[in-house]
Amino acid sequence: MNEQGYHVAIVGATGAVGTEMLAILEERQFPVKELTLLSSARSAGQTLLFNGQSHTVQEATPEKFEGVDIALFSAGGSVSKKFAQEAVDRGAIVIDNTSAFRMDENVPLVVPEVNEQDLLDHNGIIANPNCSTIQMVVALEPIRQALGMTKVIVSTYQAVSGAGVSAIEEMKSQSQSILNGEQPSTEILPVKSAEKHYPIAFNAIPQIDVFDDNGFTFEEMKMINETKKIMHMPELKVSATCVRLPVETGHSESVYIEVEKHDQTVEDIHRLLENAPGIVLQDRPKEQLYPMPATAAGKLDVFVGRVRQDLDEKNGFHLWVVSDNLLKGAAWNSVQIAESLMKLKLV
Amino acid sequence: MNEQGYHVAIVGATGAVGTEMLAILEERQFPVKELTLLSSARSAGQTLLFNGQSHTVQEATPEKFEGVDIALFSAGGSVSKKFAQEAVDRGAIVIDNTSAFRMDENVPLVVPEVNEQDLLDHNGIIANPNCSTIQMVVALEPIRQALGMTKVIVSTYQAVSGAGVSAIEEMKSQSQSILNGEQPSTEILPVKSAEKHYPIAFNAIPQIDVFDDNGFTFEEMKMINETKKIMHMPELKVSATCVRLPVETGHSESVYIEVEKHDQTVEDIHRLLENAPGIVLQDRPKEQLYPMPATAAGKLDVFVGRVRQDLDEKNGFHLWVVSDNLLKGAAWNSVQIAESLMKLKLV
Repeated sequence: MNEQGYHVAIVGATGAVGTEMLAILEERQFPVKELTLLSSARSAGQTLLFNGQSHTVQEATPEKFEGVDIALFSAGGSVSKKFAQEAVDRGAIVIDNTSAFRMDENVPLVVPEVNEQDLLDHNGIIANPNCSTIQMVVALEPIRQALGMTKVIVSTYQAVSGAGVSAIEEMKSQSQSILNGEQPSTEILPVKSAEKHYPIAFNAIPQIDVFDDNGFTFEEMKMINETKKIMHMPELKVSATCVRLPVETGHSESVYIEVEKHDQTVEDIHRLLENAPGIVLQDRPKEQLYPMPATAAGKLDVFVGRVRQDLDEKNGFHLWVVSDNLLKGAAWNSVQIAESLMKLKLV
Repeated sequence: MNEQGYHVAIVGATGAVGTEMLAILEERQFPVKELTLLSSARSAGQTLLFNGQSHTVQEATPEKFEGVDIALFSAGGSVSKKFAQEAVDRGAIVIDNTSAFRMDENVPLVVPEVNEQDLLDHNGIIANPNCSTIQMVVALEPIRQALGMTKVIVSTYQAVSGAGVSAIEEMKSQSQSILNGEQPSTEILPVKSAEKHYPIAFNAIPQIDVFDDNGFTFEEMKMINETKKIMHMPELKVSATCVRLPVETGHSESVYIEVEKHDQTVEDIHRLLENAPGIVLQDRPKEQLYPMPATAAGKLDVFVGRVRQDLDEKNGFHLWVVSDNLLKGAAWNSVQIAESLMKLKLV
């Protein structure tokens, strides 16, 4: 860092994640010397406030990355594929919140609580994992470190904000229509570009992203493949079922794990989680204390509760993991990567 | 059956399930000779239509069961405990939709597609299983019969109507408050009698019923214990995580199973489900065909889709199971038991 701080660019600045990135940079007092806000031509011209100053959003072009130190991308995979290398070629480090480079073996896929050291091997681009993956690996890593881990089966309960601002608006307008006794209109979810759209209001849709030939969705395959990469465990058995809910913000996950040690109790798991970075344990069932999206939204942490030992498998445990998908699941993890880069003197 | 049909009583006639029972008796043209509608003192005096005729709801007392052939109970466990034996003593067969007698070894717990023959051992009371259990065992039984089964791990996505009419109203009024930018009021969910209440609108609550000492909720333990009883498999490994969603009607379940045979494919599972009673297979992912609460509500069947072979365990499969919790999960299964009693000449 030079004395004044960094020139930071946000690509996708007007989106659900981009606006949160801006808010977190401010909240964390990240040393921003200069700020460049970029977007598609359609959103260019909007103004956004940062530290009380108004910034005009510009259309992203390769030249806009001249002089940028850190570029935070969250404008869809195609935008990252088009501009990330352009930014790197001009000297920026790219922290990319899309799926464009996550499984690229030359690109570290980083959740600082889990694999911060992987940043040392970066080649200009660092990938931010899928939102549902991030919160799960934060919860699993302290357990894995202490007890080993052999299996993960997760079912997700995902919020609509993961599909962007238009999906939030769609959910709200559908909800109002149904409350009024009218037919809801469907245009965005489950996948905007897909042929069929279904109402998310007062419904649950077992499709996030499109389907792979094996019957899993791309979202499910992201959770499976990214978890193995981040945890450096290609042999870990992971399976996922991903479901969209009528929740604005906050992904929840019902996670079943099997650990290598066979003599562990719920109290042992509690102790590991309580002392782990980025985690808040909320697990006092008799007091009805457990994580929920309504209480996790707006917070940076990963909340874990409902820890139970399986009744049949003594090395099996069930967890309920909730986090703000726009914050730890996206914007905060990206900014946290930038903070780790500073800490490791990589930027 | 005598020539004119049966004297049928519904206890809890004004409730979410009771009104569906009445509708299904009519829809199925069940041979009702005489109809007695019973409720608490608070709801007595209301009138309900059956086959175009108005019936006044009366307060339940032991004497009201005189002459009743079939009594359908759905007014809470305490009401069943108070009146079920009174009804039996007066010659009725009781089909009880509460949890009062489900685990009583003298009481058959019946899902007709799975264990209709257990009705032969009844002693006056027959228990209708928990809603989330019913739809799961309907989906699992044809697979178990053909392939054997060793393990079940389920995460549920449950609708508010399972908590009654007042929970539906609460969800709607909370939704409207939040859409208006106001604080939602919380009085019913997750458990009316519990100390703390949380908003269900635009949220997910990982508590259905109260907590057992082992950290599981009673709802989760019902799924575990009832599944073993209905399928006659005390050795089956079953675990459950039960979650309430802002959905009016239609429970969904993400179910992972392991079967005994190790050479099976998704197509084999499809064939078993397609030919099984009470099941509609909705599983063409490339056409975005899969079950959802919004499409299952109001229908009698159990809908199954998203069938996938686990990527690590060759004998592991994932299913997505959806059904109307008030119909197959409650009212329809109860009436179906009554139809089975007729078929088996037990009434």
